[in-house]
Amino acid sequence: MYSTITSEIVDRVMIVTLNRPERMNAFNEKMCEEMIRAFNEADENDDVRAVILTGAGDAFCAGMDLEKGAETFMDHTPLVEYRDAGGMLSLRIFEMKKPMIAAINGAAVGIGITMTLPMDIRIASTDAKMGFVFARRGITMEACSGWFLPRLVGMGKASEWIFTGRMITASEAYEGRLVNKIVEPEELMSAAMEIATDIAENTSSVSVTLSRQLMWSMLGANHPVESHKIESKMIHWTGKQADALEGIEAFLEKRKADFKMKSSTDMPPFYPWGTDRTYEADKK
Amino acid sequence: MYSTITSEIVDRVMIVTLNRPERMNAFNEKMCEEMIRAFNEADENDDVRAVILTGAGDAFCAGMDLEKGAETFMDHTPLVEYRDAGGMLSLRIFEMKKPMIAAINGAAVGIGITMTLPMDIRIASTDAKMGFVFARRGITMEACSGWFLPRLVGMGKASEWIFTGRMITASEAYEGRLVNKIVEPEELMSAAMEIATDIAENTSSVSVTLSRQLMWSMLGANHPVESHKIESKMIHWTGKQADALEGIEAFLEKRKADFKMKSSTDMPPFYPWGTDRTYEADKK
Amino acid sequence: MYSTITSEIVDRVMIVTLNRPERMNAFNEKMCEEMIRAFNEADENDDVRAVILTGAGDAFCAGMDLEKGAETFMDHTPLVEYRDAGGMLSLRIFEMKKPMIAAINGAAVGIGITMTLPMDIRIASTDAKMGFVFARRGITMEACSGWFLPRLVGMGKASEWIFTGRMITASEAYEGRLVNKIVEPEELMSAAMEIATDIAENTSSVSVTLSRQLMWSMLGANHPVESHKIESKMIHWTGKQADALEGIEAFLEKRKADFKMKSSTDMPPFYPWGTDRTYEADKK
Repeated sequence: MYSTITSEIVDRVMIVTLNRPERMNAFNEKMCEEMIRAFNEADENDDVRAVILTGAGDAFCAGMDLEKGAETFMDHTPLVEYRDAGGMLSLRIFEMKKPMIAAINGAAVGIGITMTLPMDIRIASTDAKMGFVFARRGITMEACSGWFLPRLVGMGKASEWIFTGRMITASEAYEGRLVNKIVEPEELMSAAMEIATDIAENTSSVSVTLSRQLMWSMLGANHPVESHKIESKMIHWTGKQADALEGIEAFLEKRKADFKMKSSTDMPPFYPWGTDRTYEADKK
Repeated sequence: MYSTITSEIVDRVMIVTLNRPERMNAFNEKMCEEMIRAFNEADENDDVRAVILTGAGDAFCAGMDLEKGAETFMDHTPLVEYRDAGGMLSLRIFEMKKPMIAAINGAAVGIGITMTLPMDIRIASTDAKMGFVFARRGITMEACSGWFLPRLVGMGKASEWIFTGRMITASEAYEGRLVNKIVEPEELMSAAMEIATDIAENTSSVSVTLSRQLMWSMLGANHPVESHKIESKMIHWTGKQADALEGIEAFLEKRKADFKMKSSTDMPPFYPWGTDRTYEADKK
Repeated sequence: MYSTITSEIVDRVMIVTLNRPERMNAFNEKMCEEMIRAFNEADENDDVRAVILTGAGDAFCAGMDLEKGAETFMDHTPLVEYRDAGGMLSLRIFEMKKPMIAAINGAAVGIGITMTLPMDIRIASTDAKMGFVFARRGITMEACSGWFLPRLVGMGKASEWIFTGRMITASEAYEGRLVNKIVEPEELMSAAMEIATDIAENTSSVSVTLSRQLMWSMLGANHPVESHKIESKMIHWTGKQADALEGIEAFLEKRKADFKMKSSTDMPPFYPWGTDRTYEADKK
C-alpha cells in the first residue's frame, strides 16, 4: 500500500512510521504524497482518534533526501506555480480533524523537524537530536515554519536555532518548549500512546476536532471576539447533541462516558470555517 | 449586595471571592452577572488599583453548575442571538482598566480556569488542580479560551490539555506557564496581595491602565508599527501630565512618588481605542 | 565618528558599545541617531554577519537620560507629528538584515531593556538587572514593546513586570524567557561571540537575512499560508543559487561550506516584502 511509510491502527490510534531506514527516513516527494494519503485516511476513519508519527530505525527523519546532490532544490517549475512540498504537507496537517503527536525517536533535521511543527504535541527520546539546518545548506526554512516556529518557542530561541542552524539536543528542545516531554528511548512509544489513548478513551471526537480547529485558527485572529463568535456557535450546537448529554450524565453518574458521535458525519453545519484561506484560494 | 460572590476593598485592592462553597463555587448566570457588576465597580472606583479573584472554601471554581443535569448546555435562544456567557465575561475582563490577579486556591475546572485566562496574572496554591475538561463532557472550550490559551502556553501544552481534558497539577501548570507562580496554600493571598499592593503603592494608575490595554490589543496586531503609533501618542500625552512630573521628580529625589491622576476621569482623549471590536459591533 | 557609542568589527561581528559610562549609558537623541547609523552600516557591510550590542562600564543602559528632569518627556511637537524615538529605533532593528544579539552586562532599564526586544537573541550577565519601570515614572511603555514583549514572554510575565515596574534579576528574566541564556559576567562577551561567530562561520548570509525577515513578519500573519507563499518563493529561488550548491556539496563532502553570496547585492527580487508597513506609509 505504501512504499516509504507504514501505517497501522492500534487501540484507535493510527501509527504512521517513516520507513526508509536505510536513508535515515529522508523525505522525498513520494513520502510527502504517502503521508498526506495516510493523514486523509486518518481523518476519514472514525476508528482513528489520534495519529502518532515516528521513524523506523535510529532516525526520525534526516531531512530532504539529497540523493540528487547539489541540485536537489533546483526546480524548473515557473515561480508562480512552485509550491514548497513541506508547506503543502504542513497546510494539510494544519487542517487535520484528528490530533497529531510526533514521537521523535532520533535525528530530526530540516523538513524532519519542521514537518512536526503543525502537529499538536511533540515528544522526544532523550537521545534525539534536532536541527533547523537550512542556513548551513544555503537554503531557507520551509514547511510554514516561518509561521509556526516563533509561535511555538518564541523569537529568542527560534532565532538562535534558525540563524546558527546548529544541532540541538532533546533536552535543549524541551527547555525551549519545542517538545512537550522527553523520555527514555524505550519509553517513547508508550508515552505517545498514553496521550493518544487518553484522548481516544475519554473524549468526544467531535469536541476534539472542533477545539483543534478553533485553537489553530485563533492563533491568527486579531481579537478574542473572533473566538467568542465561533465558541458561541459551538456551545449552542454541542450542548444539544448526544455527546454532551452522555458526557454530562456520565460525569454526574461517576462513570466513563461512551461517546458515539463521529467526526466523519456528525460535524456541525458551521464546520469547517476559514478554509477559504488556502494557497489556491489566495492565488485567485 | 451580591448572592454568589463577596467583594471587599483592602489596601486599594478589590478582593472578589466566588462564594458558593457548598457547590464548589460553581458558575451560573447569576455569578456571571455579579462578577461583571463587581468588575465594573472596580473600574469606576479610583480607590481600587487592582483586583484579586479567589474562591471561598476548598475550591476556586468547579466549572459550570450542572444542577440542570445533562441539559445544562441546551439553550433555546436562536443561534444568531446566542452568546456564550463565559465569553461575555472574558470580553469584559479583556477591557478592564485595572490589573486582575487570579489567586487559584483549589480546583479550577472548565469555566473555572478559562475565566482566568483574560486576567493578567495567575498564581496558584500548590494543591490547586486545573482541568480544561470540555472534551470529556462532549462540549467545547469557551470564554474566548480558543484565543487566549494558545497565546499563554503555546500550542504544545494547550493541545495536550484541551484534547485529553485531563486534570493538571499546580506544578504542571507552572512549568507550562499557565500560572506565574505557585505558593503554599497559606501563602496564596499574601502572595497575590504582594503583587497587587506593589502596583497600588508604586505606580501611576493611568500608566497601568494604558499599558494593560496596549498589550492586550497588540497581541492581535499584525505589525509593531501599530504599537508605535499608539505608544507615540501615549508618551507625548503622559509626558505632559502631573503623574510624569511627579514620577520623575520623585525618582530624582529618591523618594516615593505620590501619583494623583485617576483612571476614572484623567484618561487621554485617544483612550479607549479599538473598542469597536465588540460582538455587538461585529454583528452589524 | 561617534560620541555616544563605539563600534568595531571583530571576526565578522560588529560590536556596538553604548558608551556614556559616566551616565550609565543613558539614552538620548544623539545615541538613538548614532545607533541607527551603526546598524545601517552593519546592514550595508558584507564583512559584518552579526551585531552585538553591549554597554561600557557597569551598566548596559540606565534608560532615558533624565538630565532635563521632570520635563524630560515634554515635547512640543504637535501630536500627529510626534514619534517615540525608541519606537523608531525598534522599527529600524525590526528590519535589520543581520542578526542582533544583546549582551546585557548590567542594569537595563526602561528604553535600556525595551530596545533589546526587537533584537533576536538576548543573553545576560548573572548580575544584570532589568526593569520595565515606566509606570513608576508616570509614563508608559514604548519602543514598540507593547507588540514585542507579550509575544516574547507571554502576557503573564509581561503584565507582572509592566504593571509593577519592579526590577527583575537576570535569573528571573531567564526563567521568564526574556533572555536566552545567563552567564558569569566575565563570560558574557565570549558567549555572545560564540553565537555570532557560529552564524558568521557556518551559514549563508542571504539565508539568514531571508529567515530573519520571514519570522518577524510571520509573527504578524493571520494564517500559515502566508508563510508558505513566501517560503515557496525562497526555496525556488535559493535552490538555484551558488550558496545552495556550495552548502549541499560541502555537506555531502563533509567539509565546511564557503558561502560567497552577499546580503548587500545578492538578495532575491521579492525581498524586501511588506516594507510598506511603516509609520510613514500608514500616515498617508
